[in-house]
Amino acid sequence: MFEEAESDPILAKKTFDLREPRLRTALLNAQYQLLNRADRMLLVVVAGIAGSGKGNTINLMNEWMDPRHIHTLAFGAPTPEEAQYPPYWRYWNALPAKGRIGIVFGSWYAPLLKEAARKRPDAERIGKEVEHIRRFEAELAANGVQIVKLWYHLSAAAQAERTRVLLSSPETAWQVVPEDLKVPKKYDRLRDAGIAAIERTDLPHAPWTIVPSADAQLRHLRTAETLLAALRRRQAPRPARARALAADRPARIADRLGELDYNASIAKNDYEIELGLMQGRLARATRSAKFHAGRSMVLVFEGQDAAGKGGAIRRVTRALDARQYDITPISAPDTVETAHPYLWRFWRHVPTPGRVAIFDRSWYGRVLVERVEGYAAPADWGRAYDEINDFEAQLADNGAIVLKFWLAVSRGVQLARFKEREHSPFKNFKITPDDWRNRKHWKDYVQAANEMLARTNTPAAPWHLISADDKRYARLQVLRHIVETVEARL
Amino acid sequence: MFEEAESDPILAKKTFDLREPRLRTALLNAQYQLLNRADRMLLVVVAGIAGSGKGNTINLMNEWMDPRHIHTLAFGAPTPEEAQYPPYWRYWNALPAKGRIGIVFGSWYAPLLKEAARKRPDAERIGKEVEHIRRFEAELAANGVQIVKLWYHLSAAAQAERTRVLLSSPETAWQVVPEDLKVPKKYDRLRDAGIAAIERTDLPHAPWTIVPSADAQLRHLRTAETLLAALRRRQAPRPARARALAADRPARIADRLGELDYNASIAKNDYEIELGLMQGRLARATRSAKFHAGRSMVLVFEGQDAAGKGGAIRRVTRALDARQYDITPISAPDTVETAHPYLWRFWRHVPTPGRVAIFDRSWYGRVLVERVEGYAAPADWGRAYDEINDFEAQLADNGAIVLKFWLAVSRGVQLARFKEREHSPFKNFKITPDDWRNRKHWKDYVQAANEMLARTNTPAAPWHLISADDKRYARLQVLRHIVETVEARL
Repeated sequence: MFEEAESDPILAKKTFDLREPRLRTALLNAQYQLLNRADRMLLVVVAGIAGSGKGNTINLMNEWMDPRHIHTLAFGAPTPEEAQYPPYWRYWNALPAKGRIGIVFGSWYAPLLKEAARKRPDAERIGKEVEHIRRFEAELAANGVQIVKLWYHLSAAAQAERTRVLLSSPETAWQVVPEDLKVPKKYDRLRDAGIAAIERTDLPHAPWTIVPSADAQLRHLRTAETLLAALRRRQAPRPARARALAADRPARIADRLGELDYNASIAKNDYEIELGLMQGRLARATRSAKFHAGRSMVLVFEGQDAAGKGGAIRRVTRALDARQYDITPISAPDTVETAHPYLWRFWRHVPTPGRVAIFDRSWYGRVLVERVEGYAAPADWGRAYDEINDFEAQLADNGAIVLKFWLAVSRGVQLARFKEREHSPFKNFKITPDDWRNRKHWKDYVQAANEMLARTNTPAAPWHLISADDKRYARLQVLRHIVETVEARL
Repeated sequence: MFEEAESDPILAKKTFDLREPRLRTALLNAQYQLLNRADRMLLVVVAGIAGSGKGNTINLMNEWMDPRHIHTLAFGAPTPEEAQYPPYWRYWNALPAKGRIGIVFGSWYAPLLKEAARKRPDAERIGKEVEHIRRFEAELAANGVQIVKLWYHLSAAAQAERTRVLLSSPETAWQVVPEDLKVPKKYDRLRDAGIAAIERTDLPHAPWTIVPSADAQLRHLRTAETLLAALRRRQAPRPARARALAADRPARIADRLGELDYNASIAKNDYEIELGLMQGRLARATRSAKFHAGRSMVLVFEGQDAAGKGGAIRRVTRALDARQYDITPISAPDTVETAHPYLWRFWRHVPTPGRVAIFDRSWYGRVLVERVEGYAAPADWGRAYDEINDFEAQLADNGAIVLKFWLAVSRGVQLARFKEREHSPFKNFKITPDDWRNRKHWKDYVQAANEMLARTNTPAAPWHLISADDKRYARLQVLRHIVETVEARL
């Protein structure tokens, strides 16, 4: 894999001088063409042997292209703040918008490479990291992010020599960092870690390129050529899996909404007493030291219009400390949000330990309104079930208690509530032409909801289907599920 | 001040029932009118005696209005992350957009109230907190944020009784927090702290309203009425000071740009050696433990088009660890940014300790391009000098080294560079019709720059005016100022 790179090839200065001007112009033009595209972003992962000059080459690429549209993202060990979130949170948060180029140092490969370079690597941990990487990159690629990965490589002797030359002058010595000096001692392990990582993550939608790095000009040229080739592809390569997913549907989907008992109800007096008691239990649990130490909560509220999501949410938040929760109402994405992969805007609201994130509608819009109204292509919403399950699993792995509620009203009760809203001077803001239009597509929504319930009801993030014709009954059920789950998990 | 509130007045249930429906409808309509306004936001500060039922009333207001357009912001003691920033950073960051209502618990009054409620309050600290509050609120008000402040008050006996009643039933006992139970012991001090805070911060553009709180229905009604009166004002009240500021200009402004020596230059060989040495010193200083412990750096680059800002910035960043800096290029604000007070978008890029925030153009656009091109009204840019000085002082108080560079080119050299850029296939992206238009307003920009240099050259955040006809000379001067300042401050 590294034969060419470890032979430390050299580029004739004449060749470089001849090709540089044309390459620069071509790169710049290709960058400007990308800039006009709302559906694609280029993400460049930079990795390789320390002290190979990758920073130096990336600096040059920033000079050759228009640096205002390039975001250099450099990750180190997670900060205390970053460590509170799922590991991929910081990568999601830093993703540049479509049209841009992102260059990533210290990427999601860092933990894998670190483990693989140990004296006795843990095969299971490596397997997990590889799996995470493959999922993440597949999801990005399916969402219009073109991924190019560069491995800067040179022989052990050339690495040591490059460091020696830099150290020999006070004008350049500061460019050498401690990591560079450690390479000679463990070159073989670093090299083998690179091979292991590249072999397991070299995919058509996220290919690796090895850049011979002993000679600066060859390093620059190969980097520029790789970027140019990527920018010139008309279509970013998509992962094979994404195309198949839409077809990957369960043969039979249970009609859970149809089979629900809509007559469940509770007397007003019983409700008042139970509500206070439930809220008390929730208040105690969410104020406990255990909850604040490592737990958080993600509550998702979905359901038909007028099912009573807002009222149920308010009964929950009254029991919470005002400083510990956020309610995020989800509606159509804005222009900044559509310029990023679908789940990006939800990653920004992931809770830290001790906090509760409440979503009034959620990422499930993808497989509900976007599917029914045709805002998302079948391939996009078909893929979303898997992406969502993966997202929620990452939250749960990080200690979040994820609970999802579908508040179900019958068609008749919805109509009655719509009419009541229209006639109430302080409720009529709640009813819009959209609500009436959605109602016309009742069956499509039921079908979409049933499929969603079937495909995203995971042990880590279960759905609770709740009969909501009686609002009080629904509110208590929501509280009961939350309280019992939180108490059981603490 | 608290006579009425401490008499614990009660509202007849009949009166409340009579007024509630009309009040709700009026509030909702007023909220919707606000929502259509791009120039105004309502910020409601909630304070008062603990255990007075403020949370309960605010919950109700959320039910009476459309909660999707209300942001409840609840601040506690600063988190470790928040504590890294200037104290007002978290309030700036949380500001809702124009058209919205923000309700703030645990606001910027918390430190003042805490200090004032001590057995022996520190008068100097109180004075400082009051000054910070007055500046912050004046700036918000001048930027279209309407501020309403509510103080929830009741007698000591009524507070104790309210707590007792809540505690008497398991359905409501959880609503009582430890803070509520401490009130009886120090009621007089809390009360006096309230009087001190209100007396010193009750201003036409940010008035206080005392809400008698012993009776829940009166509390709700007074709150709703106060919000309604605020929403119904056609024009948010502006601070008196803001109107005067535009006129508050120095009698004579030195022509620093005109008096600059544009012939300063350096030989290429000397440059190469000095550059390496300077970069080495900068690399060491910014990697030092002292810098990472409490220092950060804010570098502002301004100057005429083609003065060489980008090239100078690259010479700085090459000496920095890629993980420790961000370059933020500033251009015209987007729609999210214009929906917030002017400095909001810059507050988001304030560095934490150990980090370097570099601005390629900056908040000075307000008094440069926005002034010259007429994008900002004279009152707005006239006020900006003070707002900017205050912003930079807060950064400096927090340990940031703030350095500002104006790279000055002569008119002839600019023309030569424009032409060179137009003829270079990999530089012509740098030249746009805007550049030629700006050039036509050369004298206006010089005048604006001179005034900016005169009015914002503070000890905490000095300007360095640098002759940039010779790019190498300018780059070295920039590096020299940074290196010498950082080394002196560590």
